[in-house]
Amino acid sequence: MAKPKKTPRPKAQTPKGFRDYFGADVSERAEMLQTIAGVYHRYGFEALESSAVETVEALGKFLPDVDRPNEGVFAWQDEDDSWMALRYDLTAPLARVYAQHRNDLPTPYRRFAMGPVWRNEKPGPGRYRQFYQCDADTVGAANVAADAEICAMLSDTLEEVGIPRGDYLVRVNNRKVLNGVLEAMGVTDEGQAADVLRTIDKFDKVGESGVRELLGKGRLDASGAYIDGVGLSEAQADPVVAFLTSKGADAAATLANLRNAIGGSSIGADGVNELETIASLLDAGGYDATRIEIDPSVVRGLGYYTGPVFEAELTFEILDEKGRKRQFGSVSGGGRYDDLVKRFTGQSVPATGVSIGVDRLLAALREKGRIGRTEVGPVVVTVMDRDRMADYQAMVAELRNAGIRAEVYLGNPKNFGNQLKYADKRNSPVAVIEGGDEKANGVVQIKDLILGAKIAESATLEEWKERPSQFEVPRDQLVAKVREILDAD
Amino acid sequence: MAKPKKTPRPKAQTPKGFRDYFGADVSERAEMLQTIAGVYHRYGFEALESSAVETVEALGKFLPDVDRPNEGVFAWQDEDDSWMALRYDLTAPLARVYAQHRNDLPTPYRRFAMGPVWRNEKPGPGRYRQFYQCDADTVGAANVAADAEICAMLSDTLEEVGIPRGDYLVRVNNRKVLNGVLEAMGVTDEGQAADVLRTIDKFDKVGESGVRELLGKGRLDASGAYIDGVGLSEAQADPVVAFLTSKGADAAATLANLRNAIGGSSIGADGVNELETIASLLDAGGYDATRIEIDPSVVRGLGYYTGPVFEAELTFEILDEKGRKRQFGSVSGGGRYDDLVKRFTGQSVPATGVSIGVDRLLAALREKGRIGRTEVGPVVVTVMDRDRMADYQAMVAELRNAGIRAEVYLGNPKNFGNQLKYADKRNSPVAVIEGGDEKANGVVQIKDLILGAKIAESATLEEWKERPSQFEVPRDQLVAKVREILDAD
Repeated sequence: MAKPKKTPRPKAQTPKGFRDYFGADVSERAEMLQTIAGVYHRYGFEALESSAVETVEALGKFLPDVDRPNEGVFAWQDEDDSWMALRYDLTAPLARVYAQHRNDLPTPYRRFAMGPVWRNEKPGPGRYRQFYQCDADTVGAANVAADAEICAMLSDTLEEVGIPRGDYLVRVNNRKVLNGVLEAMGVTDEGQAADVLRTIDKFDKVGESGVRELLGKGRLDASGAYIDGVGLSEAQADPVVAFLTSKGADAAATLANLRNAIGGSSIGADGVNELETIASLLDAGGYDATRIEIDPSVVRGLGYYTGPVFEAELTFEILDEKGRKRQFGSVSGGGRYDDLVKRFTGQSVPATGVSIGVDRLLAALREKGRIGRTEVGPVVVTVMDRDRMADYQAMVAELRNAGIRAEVYLGNPKNFGNQLKYADKRNSPVAVIEGGDEKANGVVQIKDLILGAKIAESATLEEWKERPSQFEVPRDQLVAKVREILDAD
Repeated sequence: MAKPKKTPRPKAQTPKGFRDYFGADVSERAEMLQTIAGVYHRYGFEALESSAVETVEALGKFLPDVDRPNEGVFAWQDEDDSWMALRYDLTAPLARVYAQHRNDLPTPYRRFAMGPVWRNEKPGPGRYRQFYQCDADTVGAANVAADAEICAMLSDTLEEVGIPRGDYLVRVNNRKVLNGVLEAMGVTDEGQAADVLRTIDKFDKVGESGVRELLGKGRLDASGAYIDGVGLSEAQADPVVAFLTSKGADAAATLANLRNAIGGSSIGADGVNELETIASLLDAGGYDATRIEIDPSVVRGLGYYTGPVFEAELTFEILDEKGRKRQFGSVSGGGRYDDLVKRFTGQSVPATGVSIGVDRLLAALREKGRIGRTEVGPVVVTVMDRDRMADYQAMVAELRNAGIRAEVYLGNPKNFGNQLKYADKRNSPVAVIEGGDEKANGVVQIKDLILGAKIAESATLEEWKERPSQFEVPRDQLVAKVREILDAD
């Protein structure tokens, strides 16, 4: 036999920017996605799972003359030289699917999709190049009842995955109101409008006075750098500031403030009316201001969307890496975008949708201690006599048939201590032991590992006597006794 | 505003070899994966979700000097010029993950993984370039109790997803027995051994006499082509044929036949002993020959695996595309492969595992009519008066809060016929109607669409009178009446 040529050993490493998920991290996410799918389904949304791969053309990334398509996606050339890429979100594939199948799909088409997306970006701490998205969109409905429905669904979803009422808030704003504000300001130049948008994006950080400075002459940054202003007059800045600070005690007050901010703009009036409709529809469905509210300070996404914009925030506080309290923040966002399939068909099709950041939502539930407790491992049937593997196999089969998670020790059984170490590493609640003497007497030893750990930690001799952590039971009571321990722990 | 340059419209097409899944196709698969995960978990297996992307090096595909890495995978170059690729199965990533994390993982490590894999191959009918795999493997257990366990788990899994006992069979063979047969034949040359393997792979097609011809002088193919033989003597062919036809009336008879086939080979004796151990362990667990049996005619995978090999077949008949009856066939395969992580670490680590073809299993259940019935759609609340959207919104909220799938019509409500057409397309069981008169009288109209369809199809006037397909109920009985219809249908 010829000796094969040596190739250097490959490195066993997760590729840069990617990660592996183990055990409960996988099942907790699967469970959450299933819960969310249940809510979406109840709202009449249909599942869609498109392929992970799309043509670069369909994704809307255009090829430069060079060998490598636009950055941002992972792309390669197919046999026939066409460029293919991994999807970077779930909206671009929806546009392709809807354009392709629109004659067979109902109108409006409500669909949800959940799965990984890929970004060819520089990875950073907590920033991965593959992550989950979980979207719901309604395509073909111009009525803002579709937007209201998505806000209600988002509220229901958060509650069903375990965020109680009061710990979250869905906030709604409208791009059309901002357009009205721009009209009221007399800003008609596209470039200047974009500058204003960039400025209001900083409202969270710099506040009202900062926004006024940035809209006017400019502002000295915290770092000492001078940021040029947009060059508007004080009076021109007034409507924007009025818009950003228009939140009142209730929806009616907020809407009145907004009507002031937009002056006589008709697009602005459309926007305020839409918000009013959304508020009344939500109210009719029982979604009050403790769950969903009109909040014109929501600016995220205003540049991208064309109508209503929504964001879900978790309002409870956590400690950041420096030990300071801060709100957990946004876990979901969405809004109306009315040009979904125009690229493909030339027709404008109205659409509105939401995306939930599943990994952030999981992190929030872990932070609150609602998930992520160490999972109880399987019952471990130890191997005292390797020739009697069939006996041990019969025991695990009995336990499993009773619905109890159980396994037989499959490593080298010579060292019994290693078997208990293994059970410990698996976080097993119970070990079962049957040596030759037990077999002869028709009994098994049951070791309560959780109680054992508690005793080892803290218990006094008295407690130990009262409830022993290891005891003998007749072989035919194995399943019943194990269940008793599992129920007690 | 400058007119943007026109780019040609992209084609709205699923990329070649890929496909999209809609509605029940998505949820049925999700449900099956969840059921399978439940069984795997009960057996003590832990979930693992590795990234879809691996380095080409870790996948074991080596780069030629050209621009394109080995065919078979979708690959591209990262920023730092290293080659990355989409995983083509779930075993190569397991090898990488185990090599990387082996100090933190329990030994043995039982893990399951489910998700899409990608193949850069020519697509064909029913052959896609992205499909699901669903694997379970035990790493670090040399004992064939691990193999027996996987066979038992496979049997349980098939029954839990809906294949009743008697409609499937898990068949077990062993590569070591074949090695013993080769020894008994006096075949020591590697090339000749490979030729013998290739020949027995054809046993299913050409039968005993065909195998004899191919092992000897050669054989005239059905197509008229002459296939060269391996050039062995009649006597040398005897052990192979004895091996392939050694299946007896029960496991004991089969094992006795195998002992004859291997002559004095010690590796062969190891193999037969392993099969004997597996049979006795399964028997102890209650897995009799109607569920799992030793069957030396299982040849698939014998070339790849190093010890026990298993395959699950569905034994019921279906009609093929030409209307002929044939067995549904294989839905799962696996076996022992003892060099899982050697490429990475230099150490041999024993491993055994199984892969379930989820899409084939779904196809089998559809074939048997166990899944795939048309899913009942949502209740549709129609819009008679677009100014009273809030009323309709309140109705769907009530229905959903009662756990009933429901939606309000979100298209243009002007044409009421279109609303009923929509409900029909959605396969809705019930439409709810509240016009001005109904509103004034405190009632709603409920239209039983399933009954309506039945009446339209076949019912006589008498039946129609007995149970009208549309009737009026007080508004506050909406939820109760809708539930009544849903329960009756």
